[in-house]
Amino acid sequence: MDHALTYARNHYDRFVADLEDLLRIPSISTDPAYAGEVRRAAGWLVDHFKAIGVAHAEAIDTEGHPIVYAEHRVDPSLPTVLVYGHYDVQPPDPLELWTSPPFEPVIRDGVLYARGACDDKGQLFMHLKAAEAYLAAEGGPPVNLKFLLEGEEESGSTHLPGFIAAHRERLAADVVLISDTDLFGPGIPSITYGLRGLAYVEVTLTGPDRDLHSGMYGGAIENPINALCRLIAGLHDADHRVTIPGFYDNVVPLTEEERATFRALPFDETAWAEEVGVRVTRTEKGYSVLEAISARPTLDANGIWGGYTGQGAKTVLPAQAHAKISMRLVPNQTPDEIAEKARAYFEANCPPTMKLTFRTLHGGHGVLVDTHSPAMQAAARALKEVFGRDPFFVRSGGSIPVVADFKTILGLDSVLMGFGLNSDAIHSPNEHFGLDRFRQGIESIIRFHTHYAATR
Amino acid sequence: MDHALTYARNHYDRFVADLEDLLRIPSISTDPAYAGEVRRAAGWLVDHFKAIGVAHAEAIDTEGHPIVYAEHRVDPSLPTVLVYGHYDVQPPDPLELWTSPPFEPVIRDGVLYARGACDDKGQLFMHLKAAEAYLAAEGGPPVNLKFLLEGEEESGSTHLPGFIAAHRERLAADVVLISDTDLFGPGIPSITYGLRGLAYVEVTLTGPDRDLHSGMYGGAIENPINALCRLIAGLHDADHRVTIPGFYDNVVPLTEEERATFRALPFDETAWAEEVGVRVTRTEKGYSVLEAISARPTLDANGIWGGYTGQGAKTVLPAQAHAKISMRLVPNQTPDEIAEKARAYFEANCPPTMKLTFRTLHGGHGVLVDTHSPAMQAAARALKEVFGRDPFFVRSGGSIPVVADFKTILGLDSVLMGFGLNSDAIHSPNEHFGLDRFRQGIESIIRFHTHYAATR
Repeated sequence: MDHALTYARNHYDRFVADLEDLLRIPSISTDPAYAGEVRRAAGWLVDHFKAIGVAHAEAIDTEGHPIVYAEHRVDPSLPTVLVYGHYDVQPPDPLELWTSPPFEPVIRDGVLYARGACDDKGQLFMHLKAAEAYLAAEGGPPVNLKFLLEGEEESGSTHLPGFIAAHRERLAADVVLISDTDLFGPGIPSITYGLRGLAYVEVTLTGPDRDLHSGMYGGAIENPINALCRLIAGLHDADHRVTIPGFYDNVVPLTEEERATFRALPFDETAWAEEVGVRVTRTEKGYSVLEAISARPTLDANGIWGGYTGQGAKTVLPAQAHAKISMRLVPNQTPDEIAEKARAYFEANCPPTMKLTFRTLHGGHGVLVDTHSPAMQAAARALKEVFGRDPFFVRSGGSIPVVADFKTILGLDSVLMGFGLNSDAIHSPNEHFGLDRFRQGIESIIRFHTHYAATR
Repeated sequence: MDHALTYARNHYDRFVADLEDLLRIPSISTDPAYAGEVRRAAGWLVDHFKAIGVAHAEAIDTEGHPIVYAEHRVDPSLPTVLVYGHYDVQPPDPLELWTSPPFEPVIRDGVLYARGACDDKGQLFMHLKAAEAYLAAEGGPPVNLKFLLEGEEESGSTHLPGFIAAHRERLAADVVLISDTDLFGPGIPSITYGLRGLAYVEVTLTGPDRDLHSGMYGGAIENPINALCRLIAGLHDADHRVTIPGFYDNVVPLTEEERATFRALPFDETAWAEEVGVRVTRTEKGYSVLEAISARPTLDANGIWGGYTGQGAKTVLPAQAHAKISMRLVPNQTPDEIAEKARAYFEANCPPTMKLTFRTLHGGHGVLVDTHSPAMQAAARALKEVFGRDPFFVRSGGSIPVVADFKTILGLDSVLMGFGLNSDAIHSPNEHFGLDRFRQGIESIIRFHTHYAATR
C-alpha cells in the first residue's frame, strides 16, 4: 500500500491531466445529439483501463449508451470489489453562466472546473488512478477489481438493471464501492449507509365531464381542485405525520446508536434552512431535521395543476385536477406496498362527487447497510487515516436506485464513500471539484482496498 | 299597443330578413382583425335606427369599439326606458363544427342559425323592432326610449363603465331593460331579478427560494403545494359552508317568498347534474341546488399550479404554489369587503414556513331587484299575456357587470327579460334562436312599454 500511495503522490499532476482529457468529452446522455460523444467517452475509458494495465476492459452496447466493463482478477482467494460509477454528464445549460466553458477544464485556486468534474467523472476516475497506483507500484491491487461504469445515469439508468441481471456471474463480487456522494462537510469524511426509497404516484380527480362556468354551477357541482386539496391536506396530521393507514407499519425504527450519531453530527439547522431561503423548518413530531430528511419516510406533492393557470381571471369550474405525489421510503417499506396504501387512502377518501384515477409512476427501494460490516469498517479506517478523524456514518434522504439494484439483483451491499461537497454545483453552471479532494479520494481508495483485503 | 302588435305580426318576415342583414356582419370584438366589421355593424345599426324613425342615433367612438347610442324622446312627463344590448359576437371557432357558415344566416325548421342569432344581436334587435312597430303604427312609443348598444361585451366591456359615468345625464332614465338572458325553459317565461357578484383573488405561497430535491429536503422544508392545499381545504367546513371569518355577515337572507318560488320552479336536479356528467351534487347545508347556485355565496378554486406538471416523475419540492380563487357574491356582500376577508383568512392561516402573496384580480357587485317594482310588474304582465302563464322570478348564479354598473353609476334597476334558452349554443358552434321566441320577445317588449307607461 505504501508504494501505491507514494506512486500516487508522485503522479498527481499527470492524474489531473488525464482527468482533464476525459472531461473534454461532452458525454451528455440525455441529448441524442451527443450520443457519439458518449460513445467516445466509453472508448476513451476502455483505452485508459488498458493503458494503466487493467487486464480486461470493453465497452458493451446496450439499447442506449454503452456500459464500460473492466476487471483485473488477482487471485480467487482475495475478496472482489465491484466499483460502480457513471461517465455521462448533465447538460451544461445555461451556458452563459459558466465562467469558463464547461468542456474546457480549467484549474483556478486548486479547484478543477468542468461539467463532470465531480459528478461523476472526477469521482470515478479516482478509482482508475488507485488501480494504476497499485498496478505500477505493487504489481497489482490487494483485491480483485471489477468496474461497472454506465453512460445513462443522468438519463434514468434505463438499461442498467437489465444489464446487471443479465451479467450476474460476471459481476459477482463481495462488495460494491461507489464514489458518487458527498463529504458531510469540508474536511469531514462520511460514509452513507442509508438511502431512502421512493413511491411516486399521480392522482386525477374528475368532477363534471367538461369545464363549467363557476357562476352557473359553483355551489352545487363540487370543484375537483377543492376536493383534491382536501385529499392532499388530509395526507398529514397536525404532527406532520403521514396519515395513510399503515404507512409506518414496516418502518425499521431508528436505533439509539443511530440517533446518537445524528445528534453528534456538526449540523447548523438555522444555516441549513437559511441557505434555501427558509426561516422555519417543519418535521415529523419527535424527529430532528437530519433524522426527518434522511431516516424517516416523508410525503411531498411534487406537482399540482388544474383549471385556469394563465394571466388574469377566468371563472372556470374545472372538470379535472391533478397532482403528482411522491413518498420517500425507508427500510423496510417497499414501493409497491406504499403505493397500494396510498391508493387505498385516495379510494377511501375520494368524495362521491368525484371519479378517481390513480397511477403509480415510479418506485425504488430504500437501502440500509450494516455499518459494522468488514467493508464499512475498512472504509471508515481508510477515511480516518486520510482525514485525521473518524468519518460520520450518515443516511441520505435521496435515492440511488442502482444501490437497491445491487442489493436486490446481486445480493451486494454498497459502500458509499464519496468526496463531493454540496457546494460543488453538480447539475449547475461552474461545476467543480477540489483537487485536494481528488487526492484524498485516491488515497482513501488505495487504503480501502488494503484494509478490506485484510478482513479476510 | 294593439296597432303596434298588429304591425309587428304583419311584418315578422321582414323583421327576420333585417336581422339576417345584421347577422351577416362578423362583428367579432376580441379579434383586432375584425375591428372594421365591428365598426360596420355599429354603422348599420345607426342607419337602421334612422330608417325606422328613431329620432337620434349615432356611433360614438371609444378607445375600443364604438358604442351605438340612440334615443327617441316622446314627452318629458313619460317614463324613460334605457335599453341595453351588445352588437358584438363571440368568435365562431371551431368553424368545422358549424352545419352552415356562422355569418350566413339560415332558417331551418323555424330556427335561425348564425353567430349572434341569440347572443345578443337577435335579442337586442327585438327592441328595435318593437320601437319600429310603435313608430309606424302608433306614431311613437308610450315611453321615452334610449338605446345603449355596446360592441365590447364579449371582450370584457372595457370602456362601458367609463362611458356610462361620462354620460350620466344623457343616459338618465327610469329603468333599464335588457334582453340578454334565458327563459327558464321552453315556453316558460322568467325574469332574472338577482345576479351574483364576484371577488377573484390569486394566492401564491413561497417556501424555499428555489426548487429543491425532495429527497434531500423533503421532511423538514415544508412543501408549498401541501401548505396551499391545507389552506384551500380549510376554506370549506363539513357543511360546505365557507369558513372565511365574516364571509356571510352581510348576506341578505333568502325570504320565505323567494324560497317558495325556488321550490315551485320546474327543476329536475338529477337531469341537471347528469347533463354535466355528475352523479351527486354538493351544496351548502340547508340549501337546494337552485338556491346554492344562484342565491347563496360560494367559493371555487378556478386554477391551481405548482411544481412539476409534465410527463413522468420529477422529484421536486417546489419553491412556490399558486391558486386562483373566486367567490360568487350575493347582495349585500361587496367585492372589496370579501377580498379583504379572504386576505385575512390567508394571512391568519399561512404557516410560518411560507411567505404569502395575495392579489385581488377582479370584482363585481351582486344585484337584487325588487320584484314588486312597477317595472318588474309590467314585465311580468307582458310575459304572462304573451306566454299564457306567470313568469318565474329567478336569480342567476352568474354576473352581468353592466347591471351592477347601471345601479352603481346611474342608480337604475334593470329588468332582465330574456328570451334565450340554455340550449341555444351561444359561444358555441351552431348558435341559434327560435323565431317563435323572436316574435314572443317583440310582443313582450311592446306590451312592457305600454304597461310600464301605465304605472305612472
